[in-house]
Amino acid sequence: MTTTSSSHPTRLAIDGERLWQTLMELATIGATPKGGCNRQALTDLDRQGRELLTRWCEAEGLTVRFDAIGNLFARRPGRNDMADPVVIGSHIDTQPTGGKFDGCFGVLAALEVIRTLNAHGVETERPVELVSWTNEEGCRFAPCMMGSSVFVGQLTLDDALSRRDAEGITAGEALRAIGYDGDDAHRPARFAGYLEAHIEQGPILEDEGDTIGVVTGALGIKWFDVTLTGMAAHSGSTPMHLRRNALLGATRVIEAVDAIAMSHQPDGRGTVGACQVRPNSRNVIPGEVTLSVDLRHSDGDELDGMVDEFRRTLERIAADSGLEVAVTQTADNPPQHFHPECIAAVRRAAQSGGYAHRDIVSGAGHDAVLVAGVAPTAMIFIPCEKGISHNEAEYASPEDVSAGADVLLHATLELAGRPSEGA
Amino acid sequence: MTTTSSSHPTRLAIDGERLWQTLMELATIGATPKGGCNRQALTDLDRQGRELLTRWCEAEGLTVRFDAIGNLFARRPGRNDMADPVVIGSHIDTQPTGGKFDGCFGVLAALEVIRTLNAHGVETERPVELVSWTNEEGCRFAPCMMGSSVFVGQLTLDDALSRRDAEGITAGEALRAIGYDGDDAHRPARFAGYLEAHIEQGPILEDEGDTIGVVTGALGIKWFDVTLTGMAAHSGSTPMHLRRNALLGATRVIEAVDAIAMSHQPDGRGTVGACQVRPNSRNVIPGEVTLSVDLRHSDGDELDGMVDEFRRTLERIAADSGLEVAVTQTADNPPQHFHPECIAAVRRAAQSGGYAHRDIVSGAGHDAVLVAGVAPTAMIFIPCEKGISHNEAEYASPEDVSAGADVLLHATLELAGRPSEGA
Repeated sequence: MTTTSSSHPTRLAIDGERLWQTLMELATIGATPKGGCNRQALTDLDRQGRELLTRWCEAEGLTVRFDAIGNLFARRPGRNDMADPVVIGSHIDTQPTGGKFDGCFGVLAALEVIRTLNAHGVETERPVELVSWTNEEGCRFAPCMMGSSVFVGQLTLDDALSRRDAEGITAGEALRAIGYDGDDAHRPARFAGYLEAHIEQGPILEDEGDTIGVVTGALGIKWFDVTLTGMAAHSGSTPMHLRRNALLGATRVIEAVDAIAMSHQPDGRGTVGACQVRPNSRNVIPGEVTLSVDLRHSDGDELDGMVDEFRRTLERIAADSGLEVAVTQTADNPPQHFHPECIAAVRRAAQSGGYAHRDIVSGAGHDAVLVAGVAPTAMIFIPCEKGISHNEAEYASPEDVSAGADVLLHATLELAGRPSEGA
Repeated sequence: MTTTSSSHPTRLAIDGERLWQTLMELATIGATPKGGCNRQALTDLDRQGRELLTRWCEAEGLTVRFDAIGNLFARRPGRNDMADPVVIGSHIDTQPTGGKFDGCFGVLAALEVIRTLNAHGVETERPVELVSWTNEEGCRFAPCMMGSSVFVGQLTLDDALSRRDAEGITAGEALRAIGYDGDDAHRPARFAGYLEAHIEQGPILEDEGDTIGVVTGALGIKWFDVTLTGMAAHSGSTPMHLRRNALLGATRVIEAVDAIAMSHQPDGRGTVGACQVRPNSRNVIPGEVTLSVDLRHSDGDELDGMVDEFRRTLERIAADSGLEVAVTQTADNPPQHFHPECIAAVRRAAQSGGYAHRDIVSGAGHDAVLVAGVAPTAMIFIPCEKGISHNEAEYASPEDVSAGADVLLHATLELAGRPSEGA
């Protein structure tokens, strides 16, 4: 790991000022009073964002197309234009109280890569395509990562288009209303590689003083719902020894989930995020508690071990407490390992740029995690302040934004190949 | 403690069958499909209940009056009719999903006492008055124990009458609408004694096989709200060592409240009944948790000791966890000790009736707990099945209902005095 970030004098360099201005301009569409952005997928603000991005791409001579779920592809030809493209990008839709960087940074870093190649007349062997995936956030229309899910075949187009928002409008209707229902013939059949730059949305890089996270994969995720049932009773008239308090059992589950994750460091994660107490009244002993349980690990065997410990703990709690304990699994995503060549290209770009960097595993979901199932993939993380994301206070510094785009540029160049060196 | 319940051959005896039929008849007003009763205070069903009770009282020759908050007093003269009366009763309003026994048992046991005195031509030295307090449950109009609170001066009449239901109607309007806005001149100035028979609403008598609880007082109650604040963050991208998980701190509070009560047995009670987690989302580490804390004890010094331990625990949790911990007190009711002579009268009546009995402290609030502040008071508990109350499944057996009324009769006779023995 190096500790300074400086560019080699002859190294092809992105324009950090231009990238920052572009990020700030896109953020005006759906800007919130607190400095964030509310530009949810398939709304009129999404249309305005797509139109601005399309104008920027066309100004660079790119050919812009949309597939049937509205994913945008903008193509810069390669010397061998029949070769599979290297695809770079992310998404421009936001959470209702989103920030300026989540997704947008990856798309506009890709635009900056293409602007830099154009400005310096750099030809690549393979075509380079910018992608902006539809509805990564899943706010107005579930599920999240809708565009990439359809692209990789995890969600059918018909299913996606039939999803309804809170007012009963379908995703298909909303997509047609903003005019971005395209044709799947417009998208690349195969990717030579896919690179996605993104803010970390976690605190690790900031905590360790690193500028670049070389993302080697994504944590596997197992989700459970646990319901503990005792007996609701009056808090005054029921003595302690005759209680069956579901919340006391729940505390043992909450602590066990934390302890299990702590015993599988550094990549184990365990969280109880939601807790419903019934009847949830001040003077009634809780009769029933439902908890969500979220277990994650980068290694499939370790994750299975965490689940085994979790299930054994539930059995112990049921036996000790006299509570009924029911558990159902609600999600099961294995760990995702990114492609060694793509990871290596990112790592070399970070090294050659002189950036402090470390390997990191993504704890959150990204379009890249889905694309990794069908194409060689890696990601580039940059720090975001205090790890805050999905929040109007989300912030990444201009220096880190520039560093991330610089690494994306050089990793893209390695994957796309340069017929003539020395731009 | 005796273990059988049998009556002495010459002992004045209530008519258990008549009492049971009366209970079942009152329960038809507001009867619910599941066998419970929904007859909330100051509704038209309350009016129907009051009219039936008034007819029963007048059939016994009692003089029925209502005070300004609608408390019903039905007077049976004493030989010395200028003496302060012995007052017996409870309430007939119910919870929305209430049962047939909570409150109604105490009022109709008092009616059965008077029917028995009349049937056997028994004269008492003091007058005996049946009371039915207005709005003990506090469902449509807060607060609970409204009628007895006004009677003892803890709540002003104007304040009570100005309370509004969910539709904005005042208690005063509702009371006039059902025609039960009386005059305070109609109520006794002082009580020689007050006895209230009630289902236990807890599991102790059933658990120990007792028929009668000789209620010696009520637990003191201290209520608190505790808010723990950490940092909400993504459950996937935030490693364990960089978390500030408010729910993990909350588990320590929940366990400490239980442990503190367990170390102050047999009368200590400690309950966290309500728990709000924010943002309460499956994949977000809880940033803030608010808990209700309910501490009770029969002894004031012990209760203060429990509160001291609780506050020290919160300081420890704040110091250890890095969470902010804020606490506010929301209720502070000292333990209530009933009157030794009234308690002794109840105990003697249970003994002379041969009922298995034990001293017990009420953990719940009752009109009697307020009346105890202004008049010599005691209560009589009978078991209710599994301690279930405020529930349509609430049940007390005919045998226990009869036993409770029998004890009320003989305790009333002791307090009211019998000029001529041997009825």
